[in-house]
Formats: sequence, structure tokens, C-alpha cells
Amino acid sequence: MNDRPSPSEPSTSAELGEFDLIHRYFAPLATAPGALGLLDDCAMFDLPDGHSGVVTTDAMVAGVHFFLDDAAYGIGWKLLAVNLSDLAAMGAVPIGYTLDLALQTGWTQQWVREFAAGLGGCQTKYGTSLLGGDTVSTSGPMTAAITAFGAVPKGTALHRGGARVGDSVWVSGTIGDAAMAVRMRKGWTPKSAVDTTFLDQRLDLPEPRLALGQALRGLASAAADVSDGLAADLGHICAASHVAAELLLGAVPLAISVQTMVRAEPDLAREIVAGGDDYELVFTAPAAADSAVREVARLTGTAVTRIGRIAAGEGVRIVDPHGREIVLDRLGFAHF
Amino acid sequence: MNDRPSPSEPSTSAELGEFDLIHRYFAPLATAPGALGLLDDCAMFDLPDGHSGVVTTDAMVAGVHFFLDDAAYGIGWKLLAVNLSDLAAMGAVPIGYTLDLALQTGWTQQWVREFAAGLGGCQTKYGTSLLGGDTVSTSGPMTAAITAFGAVPKGTALHRGGARVGDSVWVSGTIGDAAMAVRMRKGWTPKSAVDTTFLDQRLDLPEPRLALGQALRGLASAAADVSDGLAADLGHICAASHVAAELLLGAVPLAISVQTMVRAEPDLAREIVAGGDDYELVFTAPAAADSAVREVARLTGTAVTRIGRIAAGEGVRIVDPHGREIVLDRLGFAHF
Repeated sequence: MNDRPSPSEPSTSAELGEFDLIHRYFAPLATAPGALGLLDDCAMFDLPDGHSGVVTTDAMVAGVHFFLDDAAYGIGWKLLAVNLSDLAAMGAVPIGYTLDLALQTGWTQQWVREFAAGLGGCQTKYGTSLLGGDTVSTSGPMTAAITAFGAVPKGTALHRGGARVGDSVWVSGTIGDAAMAVRMRKGWTPKSAVDTTFLDQRLDLPEPRLALGQALRGLASAAADVSDGLAADLGHICAASHVAAELLLGAVPLAISVQTMVRAEPDLAREIVAGGDDYELVFTAPAAADSAVREVARLTGTAVTRIGRIAAGEGVRIVDPHGREIVLDRLGFAHF
Repeated sequence: MNDRPSPSEPSTSAELGEFDLIHRYFAPLATAPGALGLLDDCAMFDLPDGHSGVVTTDAMVAGVHFFLDDAAYGIGWKLLAVNLSDLAAMGAVPIGYTLDLALQTGWTQQWVREFAAGLGGCQTKYGTSLLGGDTVSTSGPMTAAITAFGAVPKGTALHRGGARVGDSVWVSGTIGDAAMAVRMRKGWTPKSAVDTTFLDQRLDLPEPRLALGQALRGLASAAADVSDGLAADLGHICAASHVAAELLLGAVPLAISVQTMVRAEPDLAREIVAGGDDYELVFTAPAAADSAVREVARLTGTAVTRIGRIAAGEGVRIVDPHGREIVLDRLGFAHF
């Protein structure tokens, strides 16, 4: 199979049935033997001995989670990446995924080809496979959902509910890049020159922290991925763990471009912790494990930063470098 | 949790956020401990020792696969049932499912409540659990997708590709009920009085043949569920097995109402084998196993009927009771 365009490629749905669409664009993604070439009623998969299965699902709608004139490659990549990010937050190894695609009237094969290429790029990077799918048509906006599966050694999955008073709070990578990219796409111009290529990539091609998540098994006490926003997702850990968190705004790791922006407009710091779409891991670990956390971060090639600590109580208290508490208008972006 | 309406129930999306929607209507469906109350990044599941996982997905769009004024209970039931029917065709035991729901602007809580009740009715009957989901909003028609997974002892899954020349062809239940119900909903009036309640139930509340599918492991040589149409799905078995099938039209099992219709209008027989949406199992088994097939059908309380045989060649040859070959205008309903 070859998923590059061919001169004779029909360009719209009217010329291509579901079977041909699947054969041309999605069958090449079904690399796992258990996918059975997408030709049977179901796909097969196995869990390694002594492992539990882990499953998650995320959907995206054109006009809500992406725009049809966004590059379709990025839409495909991101849809898979956000699901893999959920697996990362549990410490799981990805196995495979299914795709449900509701194609909008007037869809083009070029769009589907690039969307499939984005899925393919992401699955190749993170070592997973399409296992099955369903393609339907809709008069409304394009809608796509992925359900991703993984495996984790029994009893070792990371959960949101394990944070304990005194634990350190950590986050991987940098925060706020996607939020700043979204602001710029909505027409905002920052007061300083920034690297828009970097920020756009961070928004469109997120990198799920699978290696870090797996390395944190047995070390982190709780974990979540940062999809709704750093403050909101840390809040989810607090709620599930029945604890509070103190989040040091000055400690939140920022990319160089975002540091520049915040120096010019200090109020942006609020947007950064509320922004969402970071797909980093926020996690807690006993303070005694601080050096062990740094070591697994080094081994997996992932930057991690200690950004606060767990306390008794409830909710997330955000403290600026002057020791003042920051109140957010909103805790995070509601994806709904 | 209680998923019945309460007097204070808000009626539209404007009054109810995603979290409350999930808590109120979908958390009660997350009966498996591994669902983690739908509160973590992923759900957990285990496969029994020596079993492989099986996964399938199906999506439905309002205006294509159902109508918004159809009873929402039936929409929820059917969406889960059609996925379980795919598991049945592989001989799998259901474990759990995920739900992606794109709610149309102006959706009502009554619709969601009844939709969730339909899922609940079906999962209770067939012993499975919601494991996770994502709820988004769309300006277009309601779209819902389920990914269902199950377990099957390693090496025993039924596939489409195992039919051999000389095998008997079997089908469970009765065929054409849903096709006749669809015709009547489109305004057609049959020439004889029929039991519309029965036909509507067959269309709206299909019963996946899970017990039969499991009992056919080690006995059937190939199997598929009848979703596209009896002739089309038998055709899928033939294509995957590199064989032909002879389908005896007079042997196709018909419900009493459908028998009455066909006596009045013999040409309906074509619609019946092309109709689809039956969610019965069509399967093949060596002729020497005919009595064993009848025995497992009896043990699982499922009617089965021998409707033809596998021959060398390709394609499905439909033969009427006079020995004449019937040519269908279309092999089955394309769900795309």
C-alpha cells in the first residue's frame, strides 16, 4: 500500500466508497497483525503476561477543537497524541487504537490523506497501530474520535488519587506554549518578537510523555496530563486525592518565547497556568524522591520542574513570586 | 446514583456542564471497578489468563443511521448492540466499552437520559460496562461512537476467512425484519396486516448473538454478523475465504409477519436478503458438524437455519425455490 497521492486519485466522496477510502488511507496504518487488515468484524490484541489493559477516548469536532483550514496532518497527529497523553498519565505502554471518523459533506481526499498521514506520523513515533475504525458521513462538521489502548504491569498504574501531604508537585516540559499559540491565532499580537514556529508546533503536534509516564511507575504518587490547564489538572489530582496544592507561579517552566512574552506582559502568567492543551504530565511524588524523579527525567530525556507541594485542605493555591495568591477567572479551558 | 429524572433537572446544555452531564447520566453506567468512576485519565481492564483481546467500533449519525425523533432509548441500545454483535461474530465475551458523544446544539437532557437508559438496558442484558468516554458539542447532527472490547481464548476467535468448500452455511434468528420495518417507516404499507411492534423492536432493539457466537468457537469455520445484509455479509465471508456460496432463498428464516408479506409480494424476498440491520450471525461449519451446530444452538436458546453451502469459486449465488438464480440490484445496504 502507498498512501501518497496518485495522479488518478479521485478528489471527493462521490467518487470513492467507504471500502476504497479505508483501503487507500487507513489500511496502511493497521500495522499490527491483530488489526487483520481492517477486514474482519473486530481486531485482536494481546496484553503481556501480568499486565492490565488501559483504555481512553477523546473526540474532536471541526470548529470546536480544530478548524478545517488547519493542516489536516496536525489534526490527525493531535487526535492520536492527546489519547496517548492519557495513556502516558497512567504509565501505560500503547498497544493500538480505533478511529471513528464522521466526514463532512464535501470532504476531499487530500484532507483525508493528510489526516491519515498525521495519524501515521504519530503512531510511528510512539509505536502503536490502528486496530479498527468506522467511517460515516455527516451533514455537520467533521468529527473524529480515537479510543486508545495500552498495557501496564498489574498494580503499577499511576492514578490521580494518590497525592499525599508533603509530596512535591512536578511538571514536565514547558507550560503555556499552546495557550500563547491559540491567542496569536485569534489575532493577538505579542509585544515582543517570538518564535511562532515553535509555539505552533507545540499546539499542533503535541508530544505525549509516554517514556516519562512509564518511568514514573512506582515513583510518582499521582499523575495527570495537562489538557484542561495546569491549575485545573493539578486540581483534579487534589480533588481525587483529598488534598490541596500550592503552585508556585514563578517556578512554572516556560519556553524562551513565552518567558519573553511574560516579561513584556506579566498578566499572561495567568493565561499560562489556565491555558490547557500542553499535554505535559503534572505529577506528585514524595519529597524524599526528588532526586529519583530528576534521575528518571534525565534517563527519559524529559525536562521536569518542581513547581509546588501538596498540603492539607482542598483546591489549588497559586502563589506569585512575591508570595501573593493569584485568583484565576477560570481554572482551565473547558473542552466541552 | 439515580438516573431517573428529577423535578429540578435542567433541560438544556446551557444549564449543565460536561462534568455534571457525565456524573448524572453516564457515571451510573460505569459499573466495572476498572472504570474508576470515569474520573481518571483512563480506565483499567483485565483479560482472563490465556485470552486475547478483541476490539471493534461503530459510529452512528443522526439523519443517517437514526432520526432525532426516534426514541433515544433505542438509539442508545442499538449503538451498543451493533458493537456487541461484532464481538459475537468473533466468539468473544464482552468486557467493556467507551462512548464518544457529539451532542447537537439544543440537545435536551431528556434525550441524553433516555439514550443513557438504552445503553444501560443493553449493557445489563449482555453483561458489560461503560469504561470511559468523551462528550463534545457540535453544530451539526448528533454523532455517537462506541468502541467495544472483549476477550476470547487465544487461538479460538472466529474469523471471516475460514470457510471451506462443502461447508454448510447457517444463519441465526430471522432475516428481513429490520428491512421491512425501515420500509414501513419510509411510508410503505404492506398488503397484509403485520405485527409492526415486533418488526420495530427488531429494528430498534437488536439482540447481539453473543451466547451463540461463543458456543460456535471451535465449531464454525467462519462467521460474520449480518449488518450490511445477508447476501453482502455472506459475500464478505466468501471473499475472505476465497470461496463461493450458494444461498437458498427459500430456506432463509422469516418471521411470521415477514412470511405473510412475502406471500403477498414475492419480490420482497430480494429486499430481505439485501436489507441489513439484522444483527444475526451468518456462519459456516463443516457439513459433518450439522448436528453439533443444532445442539449448540439449542443450548444457547438461539434458532439457527441451514441456508446453503460453500462451493468453489467466488461470490454469492442466490437460488430461488424453483432453482432460478436471483440477481440483486444491490448486495446490501452501504452504511457509509
